[in-house]
Amino acid sequence: MFEVAELGLAITGEEFDSRAPQLHLRLLEAQRALSSTRHTVLILLSGVEGAGKGELVSRLHEWFDTKGIQTAAFWDETDEENLRPRYWRFWRAMPARGKIGIMFGSWYTEPFIERVYDKIDDEEFERRLEEINEFETLLRDDGVIIIKLWFHMPKDKVEKQLERDEKKHIKKLRISPYTKRFARYFDKFIHAAQLAIRKTDTDIPWHIVEATDGHYRDITAGQIILDVMNEHLDPKTKPATKKAHFAAESVERAPPLASVDLTQKLDDVSYQRKLQKWQGELHALAWRARELGKSVVVVFEGWDAAGKGSTIQRMIKAVDARLFRVITTGAPTDEEAAHHYLWRFWRHVPMPGNFTIYDRSWYGRVLVERVEKLASQEEWYRAYDEINLFEQQLSDHNILVLKFWLHISPEEQLRRFDARENDPLKNHKLTKEDWRNRDKRKEYELAVNEMVAHTSTICAPWNLIAAEDKQFARIEVLRILSKALKQELK
Amino acid sequence: MFEVAELGLAITGEEFDSRAPQLHLRLLEAQRALSSTRHTVLILLSGVEGAGKGELVSRLHEWFDTKGIQTAAFWDETDEENLRPRYWRFWRAMPARGKIGIMFGSWYTEPFIERVYDKIDDEEFERRLEEINEFETLLRDDGVIIIKLWFHMPKDKVEKQLERDEKKHIKKLRISPYTKRFARYFDKFIHAAQLAIRKTDTDIPWHIVEATDGHYRDITAGQIILDVMNEHLDPKTKPATKKAHFAAESVERAPPLASVDLTQKLDDVSYQRKLQKWQGELHALAWRARELGKSVVVVFEGWDAAGKGSTIQRMIKAVDARLFRVITTGAPTDEEAAHHYLWRFWRHVPMPGNFTIYDRSWYGRVLVERVEKLASQEEWYRAYDEINLFEQQLSDHNILVLKFWLHISPEEQLRRFDARENDPLKNHKLTKEDWRNRDKRKEYELAVNEMVAHTSTICAPWNLIAAEDKQFARIEVLRILSKALKQELK
Repeated sequence: MFEVAELGLAITGEEFDSRAPQLHLRLLEAQRALSSTRHTVLILLSGVEGAGKGELVSRLHEWFDTKGIQTAAFWDETDEENLRPRYWRFWRAMPARGKIGIMFGSWYTEPFIERVYDKIDDEEFERRLEEINEFETLLRDDGVIIIKLWFHMPKDKVEKQLERDEKKHIKKLRISPYTKRFARYFDKFIHAAQLAIRKTDTDIPWHIVEATDGHYRDITAGQIILDVMNEHLDPKTKPATKKAHFAAESVERAPPLASVDLTQKLDDVSYQRKLQKWQGELHALAWRARELGKSVVVVFEGWDAAGKGSTIQRMIKAVDARLFRVITTGAPTDEEAAHHYLWRFWRHVPMPGNFTIYDRSWYGRVLVERVEKLASQEEWYRAYDEINLFEQQLSDHNILVLKFWLHISPEEQLRRFDARENDPLKNHKLTKEDWRNRDKRKEYELAVNEMVAHTSTICAPWNLIAAEDKQFARIEVLRILSKALKQELK
Repeated sequence: MFEVAELGLAITGEEFDSRAPQLHLRLLEAQRALSSTRHTVLILLSGVEGAGKGELVSRLHEWFDTKGIQTAAFWDETDEENLRPRYWRFWRAMPARGKIGIMFGSWYTEPFIERVYDKIDDEEFERRLEEINEFETLLRDDGVIIIKLWFHMPKDKVEKQLERDEKKHIKKLRISPYTKRFARYFDKFIHAAQLAIRKTDTDIPWHIVEATDGHYRDITAGQIILDVMNEHLDPKTKPATKKAHFAAESVERAPPLASVDLTQKLDDVSYQRKLQKWQGELHALAWRARELGKSVVVVFEGWDAAGKGSTIQRMIKAVDARLFRVITTGAPTDEEAAHHYLWRFWRHVPMPGNFTIYDRSWYGRVLVERVEKLASQEEWYRAYDEINLFEQQLSDHNILVLKFWLHISPEEQLRRFDARENDPLKNHKLTKEDWRNRDKRKEYELAVNEMVAHTSTICAPWNLIAAEDKQFARIEVLRILSKALKQELK
């Protein structure tokens, strides 16, 4: 596979000097064009050690306007990073729309190191590569232009280069101490690289660059970056929109919401008794979860006025204030709007032993954004998979994910709206938007039913809660939460 | 001091029920009023263990609209936290303007614990309390309404409470395992508390609340929060603006910029030789700094077209791409604008062993914001102290702070503007703003001179660089940087 990059391609200093200014200018133009789009450019630098990834970064700082680029280097994980799901650190380092990010090391690095040092076998390595494909697809679908560069040199050249670097090191020139260990593992590395490139050379392709000659390497890499950027920024190249295929029929035949029995009730005496029981239970479980480092993500969705807020209050009354955080999902900040819609939720993924309670959540993508046409059909349909992947990653990281939909009838909703309007303690909760949403009940019902059908997974099933009676709903939530947590902590 | 909180004050459940709704409503109103202001409310909960801080947090979640409040609990520091200056974690948890933050544990916690466990003596404890006063003043000056609540109970009550909690624990009710250790240290704790409250009861006062009776505690705390909020939100209470007193005279007599000899030059041959020398030096030093965990913050300020960008390029060419980060300071994002002007810079404070290069910086507050009247005279004048405090905190944390002002004459600037305009590779660097700034040269000169006079400190002196000749300037920067770093790494 790497033979194509062992041809000894090189260019002279004069040729470089004559070609570089033109490339520089074109890259600047591409960067300017990029800055006003919804695209992000992500340049991943991979390949053999000593091939000059660092030099290319310097070169790109020269060719691009420094103001629009941002370099991220991934060293050993900090504890904040390794205590969170694997991709958290990459979400965290993600540049905003209109910007260029250079990733020195990337999601390929860790699986690579672990494979080369035999900490994982080929099978696990391939599983990780599959994960990478899913992640890259998710970014690509959101407009991220991923440019994957692989710098190659033949083994003897690497050895020579490392020797040369070693000597230069004495003369205090550029060389990283991390480079030295590399040569010994060259063959294993190439083996892993071949597998990795084969498995991840998707429609987000790898570009293999012969890196033996620095001039050739920089000009070639720069040209690839330019070509890929221009191809994506050209308004004529429309990405082939994938057709959304609906399971709408089965949802229509057996809509999940129809299965909720809204007549369920709880009298005051039973309510008080059960409230005390489950709050006590949950309180102890929350401390136990803290001790064991178990995190819990709780998602509350539901009709306006279905009682999300008051249910959350009953829940946090049970949990020590130091153990939970409530994230209220409103309009995104501009930093949030400048990223993938999941980015703002990744930000708040809890450290071990904590509860994060989302009062509305990423499901806005398939509810309000769908109904209000803020997301295209392709976007919200794709979101089902993206959300399932996200929750899977949380679950893989030993985070318990619980999702509640609080269900009420339109009649009960109207009664509550009227009551809110007349209560000075509650009228801040009622907005014009609530009335507007109410008029779209039918469309929302379809969206909710399809959401439940598509995103009720084994690791994160939906709990549809009959909330026509508030007391019944609160106890149900506390009961399900406690039971699930108890099960997990066994 | 705490006798006032040992009077046995209590109210009955009925009284609570009759007073609470009114307080609830008033708090909601105050919160609504707050939301459209530049103020942030910060409620610090301190006091003896078992006094019900957690209960109050639940109560506040009931009384306020959950959407506008945010609770932060400070446990043991994560490594990302303890590898950064002490206040980084608090900056990080700071709520935005218009919001209410509840801090469960705060900047008081760590000094307290260390004093109670005899890890520091009274003298060091007082030094830390002084730091706290400076920090609180800085926040207060920016419109943060800090409400410091101290929950007190007499010793026998604490013991009884903890016993009771212990029993309840068996019944699985609210009690934190952290509470148990507390009783043994009660006397030492009260000793430290008295000192702390005396030293930090400034014009941001402490409110001591008798916490033996839960109803009394919640109503009293709620009422204090309400009163303080209303007092600050009342447009009639103008904060007494402090007069800015200028050292303008001495600056006028000996303006720092006048001391820069702009005729200094470097020929091409010496330049190339020195460039190689200092880049090599810096490269090795950067890796050495990495090994030793030494961080470097480099600030570049200077006239438009003075060569900041190209100097930064020469610098990062020497440093491995994994070891530095360039932060370009442009218009703030809305998340940044919703915080203290230093918040956006605290965000990027480097982890040990890294360089953070600021292309323009917090000095914008006393330069562009002053000249363009984006900050009031009181604000930018106050900023000298705030900036000195900030840099002192970096320096205390073993971070090397280096500041460069690149100086050129107005004539040279004009030549460069003209050249930029005609160069397709550079014309993106020239904006209308640059021309406008040029017209205000006189005002900027005054601002720069005063800035240098006020913020050249021992831990972070200004380096005024003659940049009329670009080559000379680049070498100067590299030389000063290398020398300073070498000195530090000795």
